[in-house]
Amino acid sequence: MAEAEWVAVDWGTSNVRAWGIAADGGQAFAVGADKGMGKIGRADYPAVLDELIGDKVAGTVDVVVCGMAGARQGWLEAPYFETPADLHQLLSRAVSPEGADARFRVRILPGVCQRQAGYEDVMRGEETQLLGLLGLRPGFEGVAILPGTHSKWVEIRGGRIVRFSSAMTGELYEVLSQHSVLRHSFAGDVDGAEIEAGIADGMAAGLAQPELLSALIFRTRAAGLLSGKGADWCSGYLSGLLVGAEIGGHRDWLGPEPVPLIGSARFATLYGTALARIGVQSFALDAADATIAGLKEARAQ
Amino acid sequence: MAEAEWVAVDWGTSNVRAWGIAADGGQAFAVGADKGMGKIGRADYPAVLDELIGDKVAGTVDVVVCGMAGARQGWLEAPYFETPADLHQLLSRAVSPEGADARFRVRILPGVCQRQAGYEDVMRGEETQLLGLLGLRPGFEGVAILPGTHSKWVEIRGGRIVRFSSAMTGELYEVLSQHSVLRHSFAGDVDGAEIEAGIADGMAAGLAQPELLSALIFRTRAAGLLSGKGADWCSGYLSGLLVGAEIGGHRDWLGPEPVPLIGSARFATLYGTALARIGVQSFALDAADATIAGLKEARAQ
Repeated sequence: MAEAEWVAVDWGTSNVRAWGIAADGGQAFAVGADKGMGKIGRADYPAVLDELIGDKVAGTVDVVVCGMAGARQGWLEAPYFETPADLHQLLSRAVSPEGADARFRVRILPGVCQRQAGYEDVMRGEETQLLGLLGLRPGFEGVAILPGTHSKWVEIRGGRIVRFSSAMTGELYEVLSQHSVLRHSFAGDVDGAEIEAGIADGMAAGLAQPELLSALIFRTRAAGLLSGKGADWCSGYLSGLLVGAEIGGHRDWLGPEPVPLIGSARFATLYGTALARIGVQSFALDAADATIAGLKEARAQ
Repeated sequence: MAEAEWVAVDWGTSNVRAWGIAADGGQAFAVGADKGMGKIGRADYPAVLDELIGDKVAGTVDVVVCGMAGARQGWLEAPYFETPADLHQLLSRAVSPEGADARFRVRILPGVCQRQAGYEDVMRGEETQLLGLLGLRPGFEGVAILPGTHSKWVEIRGGRIVRFSSAMTGELYEVLSQHSVLRHSFAGDVDGAEIEAGIADGMAAGLAQPELLSALIFRTRAAGLLSGKGADWCSGYLSGLLVGAEIGGHRDWLGPEPVPLIGSARFATLYGTALARIGVQSFALDAADATIAGLKEARAQ
């Protein structure tokens, strides 16, 4: 196996992942642990990092970190970089925490914020994936979507994040399916037979009437009661509805350019299908690939 | 105290309330218990009713019940009355459960459903409040709003419910403030100083861009992080936003008629303020008053 010249780290809320990067840009190793920011204290970071990569690197190495390690509750706060944020300046705004093993030159990249009154928004980690997008698709301009717990819509012009909007699509699905009256509609086998039909129905409803989201959500329950829809249809309907409403609500963000979908394969399919319904082309980019590409770009800055 | 000629009962999901009604229409007594449908089994209904009113009535009496006692998981299912549902026929569709004390002639009123594909919806209890509205405001036509956990928008023409829409406004507030990332923004004292400012900001945002609800919700969190907004502003913002988006999304339901707001005083103020912002007049009707009036109208049918 090639030797790691430096280490790329994605330190999220739940998990941390680290990739050893060889001199030729290839991966020397990939490791991870469920020791995200939400699960450890400030003082634990040096030991967690040492546990992850201590016996995998030789000599002194750069360790470039993105994500929640730079949050206020993380290792060391990396203050938000305000829009319009030039992604090529991420490294210059990184912070260097104390306490790490002397062999590790740790730098934590900043998140990005938008302060316009009424449009306050924050991201941490996605800015690195967007820098990765610019590395993989040099000169990219347009809107990228990063689906997930808090989906991000980001407009990039001239290498800068000029505006962005976070939608709580993934988290709404979680809290509604687990804690609201809809949980009764999700009880029972999800055998899959009706999931696709539910997704299609929900997506059509959300795209057509995003302004009625809080009402359309209740239709999940009503359709279960009145039409005997089972857990599979209902779960499909709710996810299709939330994705459709997110896209329908941001419709005026979309231009003629194909939209990069940076996330899991499942989300890329779901969002790609919804975008195709309104005549918008898209392409998928794996989230980890984008993160690694972004950390490489940042280190090279 | 006057003697009760019959008993009006509102059997909800959490609580049950009963009012003894005298021959002149006045209240002979009012009692209640936290023994709603969600907390008792089918076999418990006769005993709960007996406990509530057994020693308060003399001889044989009518007991007219609305609400969740008629749900599938209630005392006896009172099948949904389908739109367009003539409110003056509610009693003719009531069901009579077995097992009650022989002195009680129990009838449970039906809920109302809407079966049009894509517009499935259900109500149980609100139909009785709407019949009460017709009793208190004879000849009422237009749209009524019943704010709450699952707010109802109901269009009434010629004494019939012609269409309705349920919005999960109240329940969204509950699950988001307790179970989502927003709970961090709700930690701390709610001393009230900034609640009104939060409500105004959220209401303006929801009314202006209801199609962006899932994004605007996240602004609660971002404003807390970026602008130091405290728990009071954030809780006000989220409630104003959800109410504003509900009203903004249903804007094309509103006509020139003043809108009855059937619910608590707090909700009536919140919804009345939001409606006034878009130039719509409204008037408040207490939920219990409407329920009692509706049960009286039903018994007289």
